[in-house]
Formats: sequence, structure tokens, C-alpha cells
Amino acid sequence: MTNNSGLKADKALAARLFDELLSLSRDDPGVTRDAYGEGEEKAHRLMRQVSGELDLRTEVDAAGNLFLSFDGADSTLPPWIVGSHLDSVPHGGNYDGAAGVIGGLSALSAIKKAGVIPRRPIRVVIIRAEESTWFPESYIGSRAAFGLLPPSALDVRRADTGRTLREHMLELGLRPDLVATGTAALSAGFVHGFIELHIEQGPNLETEEIPIGLVTGIAGSFRYRNARCRGTYGHSGAVARKYRQDAVFAVSDLIVALDRFWAKLEAGGEPATITVGELSTDPAVHAFSKVPGEVSFCLDVRSINTVLLERIHEHLLSCVREIEQNRNVRFDFGSRSGSKSALLSTDLRHRLLRIAQDLGIPFLTLPSGAGHDSAVFANQGVPTAMIFIRNQNGSHNPDEAMRIDDFQAAASMLTNLLLR
Amino acid sequence: MTNNSGLKADKALAARLFDELLSLSRDDPGVTRDAYGEGEEKAHRLMRQVSGELDLRTEVDAAGNLFLSFDGADSTLPPWIVGSHLDSVPHGGNYDGAAGVIGGLSALSAIKKAGVIPRRPIRVVIIRAEESTWFPESYIGSRAAFGLLPPSALDVRRADTGRTLREHMLELGLRPDLVATGTAALSAGFVHGFIELHIEQGPNLETEEIPIGLVTGIAGSFRYRNARCRGTYGHSGAVARKYRQDAVFAVSDLIVALDRFWAKLEAGGEPATITVGELSTDPAVHAFSKVPGEVSFCLDVRSINTVLLERIHEHLLSCVREIEQNRNVRFDFGSRSGSKSALLSTDLRHRLLRIAQDLGIPFLTLPSGAGHDSAVFANQGVPTAMIFIRNQNGSHNPDEAMRIDDFQAAASMLTNLLLR
Repeated sequence: MTNNSGLKADKALAARLFDELLSLSRDDPGVTRDAYGEGEEKAHRLMRQVSGELDLRTEVDAAGNLFLSFDGADSTLPPWIVGSHLDSVPHGGNYDGAAGVIGGLSALSAIKKAGVIPRRPIRVVIIRAEESTWFPESYIGSRAAFGLLPPSALDVRRADTGRTLREHMLELGLRPDLVATGTAALSAGFVHGFIELHIEQGPNLETEEIPIGLVTGIAGSFRYRNARCRGTYGHSGAVARKYRQDAVFAVSDLIVALDRFWAKLEAGGEPATITVGELSTDPAVHAFSKVPGEVSFCLDVRSINTVLLERIHEHLLSCVREIEQNRNVRFDFGSRSGSKSALLSTDLRHRLLRIAQDLGIPFLTLPSGAGHDSAVFANQGVPTAMIFIRNQNGSHNPDEAMRIDDFQAAASMLTNLLLR
Repeated sequence: MTNNSGLKADKALAARLFDELLSLSRDDPGVTRDAYGEGEEKAHRLMRQVSGELDLRTEVDAAGNLFLSFDGADSTLPPWIVGSHLDSVPHGGNYDGAAGVIGGLSALSAIKKAGVIPRRPIRVVIIRAEESTWFPESYIGSRAAFGLLPPSALDVRRADTGRTLREHMLELGLRPDLVATGTAALSAGFVHGFIELHIEQGPNLETEEIPIGLVTGIAGSFRYRNARCRGTYGHSGAVARKYRQDAVFAVSDLIVALDRFWAKLEAGGEPATITVGELSTDPAVHAFSKVPGEVSFCLDVRSINTVLLERIHEHLLSCVREIEQNRNVRFDFGSRSGSKSALLSTDLRHRLLRIAQDLGIPFLTLPSGAGHDSAVFANQGVPTAMIFIRNQNGSHNPDEAMRIDDFQAAASMLTNLLLR
């Protein structure tokens, strides 16, 4: 331990940056920072300005990931990388992603103010496009940083603008051509470790009244973003139940069956989440007086247990076969996407655990049901840790909240880790 | 029986009019004849033209209902009224409504061509706005014809244009001021009887291979057009099942519960239909990676049995209470609307039955699950009959079909009834 043990992160800077982020991205209700769009861009500009204030070195990679670096005593050593993303879902909260970026900056600010020179370089990374609501791809920025984004991903279109990722990158003066050839800003062998602070996004810490979570692993997922059930439209009053091919009844059957299966898994202590976040009859054709002939929906299933994910997938298929027979409808799930689960570094977690104990900060150890850029770093072989911050009202919604003291506890743990 | 027994309706005229209607309202897939809009207006213009060809008297009432009249031997006698509506649902079929109007005209044409003078006047009525997808009101045209439309209905807005019924009427040069004061074109005491030909819209006749249905009564309904379930948005991967307030799971629970109840009613021979024709998460807020915090939907429940309707309504409320507790969500059903059921004339049905036997036309006797303008006439005390025509692929959809020979059988029954 150095004599800087107990150094606290720069809470004033953090509070200011959260405020400025909120005011530049407010989109009532909540905030909107669109990936590779005006919202994310404004947030990146703010961080470049802070980089100047803190006298950090500013670099941008081909995909637009922003690196703010402070050279340590030996600039040839592999650096610590800390950070997260600044994009948000539409009408989301201010802290999801931002806490990881501001956590890194408030740690660096405290270290600089204390006049301490860390042994190895510290780089704050601001990763692009983590929220896959914009482009239907997981971890665009972090995969591109490792040269791992497949060229086909550049052709994917943003859900709202309809323009491709390539077009969005070009509009910002970035280099999709280099992304396509796998040009990498990062390589696992040259990173000492990656630390991501993040709000929990779930109610566990809040319910248990514990400010900090140390994350064991990150859930993988399977996803169907464009599932459809087709039956036959008809007059609502004239088609008896036995003659119906009712897409709403069929999809409701499926959702209730999946929820029952989830309830069983939960009762058995098997960790998973099952979500139908979007669901709609066809506004161009439906009517309150028509038997619904089509429903579109999406499905997001997550678990840190890969085998369990496949069991849920098999159950899905068997439910679908049964419902197709009973209801005389057809399901079409479209293409399956998803992400691999990731185990985080036990060594880093234990070091953070000791720091929490030293600082007197209560913590829980828990898995992450949500995906994070940390999964890409960990799966590339970078020793990776995540610190969850207790938060209120979940995330991906306008009511998402976080207490600044809980944030400071996490950022101070980070500050101490970077100096040990 | 007169010596005109066996006179057949004018099939050539009918075929021509169905073709012309189709070409003037085609809106692939299917046809769109919007109530009090361009689609319905074009169809009315065609019928005015035919009125000229057949040398009929043309009148329009304050609400735009069109009457084409042929005076009989004694023009002081209460007239037969025959007809239906010409509006369609968006992307609907060509025959729903139109068969009743064209049925009247092809009967009149045959009578005129045969040189027969009927005893009493015959009026073909072309009723406005029967399809309540446009304005959320039932039977606008037929209620207005009897002076029964409440003035508040004139403030109701058309679903697509957002303009009020009053504005739409004024745009067509009609007289909403007179509609508001209850000016009536029709009065029950001055109508001998009302006959409406209509496609069945359901699969009963088609499945039984019978061309004609004689209708016993018309279902009433209760409807919630703007129901909503509110839970709490959250991150799809981060909120465990026990903490969820998931609006999609809650609404699916409700739909499956209603379907189970319907299955029981069906097994017990109790006639009803239950339909959730529109269903949607909120496109402005939802995301595939968000727990859905809100679902909007509508509910249409029909039965010719008023007591059964109330039993279903009570079951709905008890399901809702249970789901609100289990899922920690709130349902808000908005205002209840609906229509009364109606019994049709036994006397007219028996006369039509004898005509069918005389003409060698196979028929079934059955209730109508769908609503029809006939319900307004019957509930006003007008002796009312409906003749269902076998049709394929239901109705309210682009694939709706009908065989012209089945239509001619129904129209010929009508022709014979008018001459007896």
C-alpha cells in the first residue's frame, strides 16, 4: 500500500460533469444520447474539453472511441484502462454508461490534484455505441477498438434514421474503412487491466441497502429482434373461437408459457431474464373490430449460464410448435443474435474487495444480467473488473437515479486500485 | 303469391356495380372506403348515377344517408326499405355493406324490367359510416336517420384524420346542425319493413356448404378502445422476475385468461366473441432491451345474450384485480362503449324461409355476431330481416370473397319478398 491509501475521487468534478451531461442531452422525459449521432457527439465534446482542463492526452480511434491518457512513471508499461460509454437509450437516464467515464476522470483528477505519479499509464476510454437500441449490434465501439467488428456490421442501419453505421461514422469524420480492415486501437497483451464502473440497473443493491456490487460475470444472451406471428384477419364478431387464427392469442400463449418457465427457473435458483420489450399488431391493418392477423415482437433472453440459455431456447421452440398447432398460426423468428457471457477477473475482484474493506465500504458480490463493454475486454483476455453502483428506478428509463455519495465510494475504490 | 314468383334479381347490373365499386376504391391490398371521406363519397356518387339510370327518386338526409326510391301503386303506404352501407374498413373487402345496397338495386332493376308495379314504395337506403374503425361510434348513419345520434357524437374525431364528424359532414355539404337537433328522415311507424342483405363475414355457411343464412338476431357488445396497462420500465437484463412490473406479461396474462373463459363458454354452447384487435407497447419509449412499462390495447366482446355480456365483464374485472396484485401493475380501461343486441322479425324471417323453399335455395338459421344497421331499425320497432350470403375468407380483410351466384340467390329472395 502507498501512503496515498484512502485518496478520494473528485466528487465536485463528477457532480459538475453529470449536470453538464444532463443539460446537453435532456430530451423530456429523460435524456437521449444517440449512438453516432448528435447526442453522443455532444457528450464526447464535453469530455474532450475536460481532457484539456486535466491536461490529458486526447486520441480518437478509427471507430470514434475517445482515449484520454495520463502517462505514469513508466510510459512503456501496459496501461490501466478505465471507462465506459456515453450513449443512452432514447429517453433513458443520465448515469448508465456516464458513471464509468466520469468515474475514470474523477479518479484521475484526484490523483493529479494529490500530485501523485502512478507507476503505469492510466487511460480513460469513452466507448462508442454500447446501447444496441440504435444499431442492432452488440458492443460496436469496444469490438471495433480491438479490430473485431465484422465489416458487415457497418451496413447495419440505425433504427430511427435508417442510415447505416458506415454513413453515421463518415458524417462524424471517422474511418469506417479502417474499422472494416480490423485496425485495432487496443490489444489484450498491451492492457494491464480494464475497470468499468456502472450503475447496477437492477434493484438488488437498493433492496439490500448496499452501495457497491463487485461483479463476477456478465450474462450472455440470445435475441430475436424481428419475430412475427401470422394468423388470419377476420371480423371480430363473426369468427367463432374454433375458426380463429388469432395472432394476439397465439403470442399471448407464448409469452405466458415463457414466463411460467422463467418462474420455475427462478424458483430453482437458475439465473436468467426473459423480456418481450416490443410487441405490436400492425397499425396499417389492425382495427379494434378485426381478429388480429399479425403480431410483431422481440425477445431478449439473458443468462450467465450458456447451457441454461440453450435450454430456454429449446423450450421456446417446443412452445412455438405446440401453439402453431393449437392456434393455426405461423411464427417466424427471423435471425438470432446475441452475445457470449463473460467471466471477470477473480484477482481484480479480490483486490477491489480488500480496498472496499479498507475504506469501510459495504459491498455485495453479484453477476450482471445486463451486457457491458467489459464482456468484450474480458473475452479478449484482458483482466477485467466491474464495480456496480447502487441505483434507484432501474435504468433505460427517465426515472433512473443514483446517489452521488454511492458514486464517490465506487470512484474512490477505483482511485485506490489505480495507485496500488 | 303473384304471377311474378320466381323473378330473379338483375345479376348483370350487380356484377357491373361490384366491379365499378372495386375499381373506384382499390387500395392495395383490398379496398378502402373511408366513412365521410373520399372513399365513401365516390361510392355514393356511383349509386346516384345508377339511380338516374333506373329512373329512381334521389334524396339525401341531413347526415348524408342516400335514399333511392321507386313509388309503388299506392305511394301513401309505408315503404319497404332495403339497403346497407358502402363504407369499408381500411384495406377491407368489396362486399361488406355493398352487397346490401347492390342487392336492393338489382331487385329494383329486375322489378322494373319485368314491368311490375309493386303495391307499396320501395326505397334503397345507402347508410353512412357503419364501420366504427373510422369514428369510434356505432351505427352513425342509421341512428342519424332516425334522429337518434346524440349531439356529442358530432365531436368525435376520425381515427386517421383527427377531424371531427361535424367537420367531415360540413366538408361534404351536409347538415350536422340538423343532425344535432334530431331531425329524422325515418320514423318507425312509416316503414313497412327493413331488409338488409349482407355477407356472413364468418365461416359458418362456407363450412356447412349452404349459400344463405336467415338471421335471428344481432349481437350487442361492450368495448374498450383505449385500455392501458402501466408497469415500470427497466433494464431487460437487470430486473429479476420478482422485481418486475412488466406490462407485457400482465396483458398476456389477461388475454390468456379471457381466452380460457371463452373456451369454457364455447364448450357450454354460450355464444360470444372476445377480440383484442389492437395491442402495442409504446413505440416512443419501448426498446428490445427494456422491460416494457406500458401496453395499450383494445377489447371487443360481443354476444346476442345481454346477461352473458355482463358475466364476461365481471370476469374481466376479477382477472384484472388479480393480475394487478400479482404483477404490481395498473390497468386503466378508459370509457366503456358498445351496442345493444337486437331481435329480428320472426314474421319476416318465416316469409323469407318460405320463399327460399319455393325457389329451392338451401339456407341455415343463425345469429349475427357482427353488428349491423339492422339492429338500429329493429330496436326502433321496424320489422327487420337480414339475409346472410355465404362468403369466403371472412371480412374486414383484403381477401374477403363472395360468389355472385350466392349473391343472386339472396337478391332474388329479396325481389320475391318485395313483390308478395
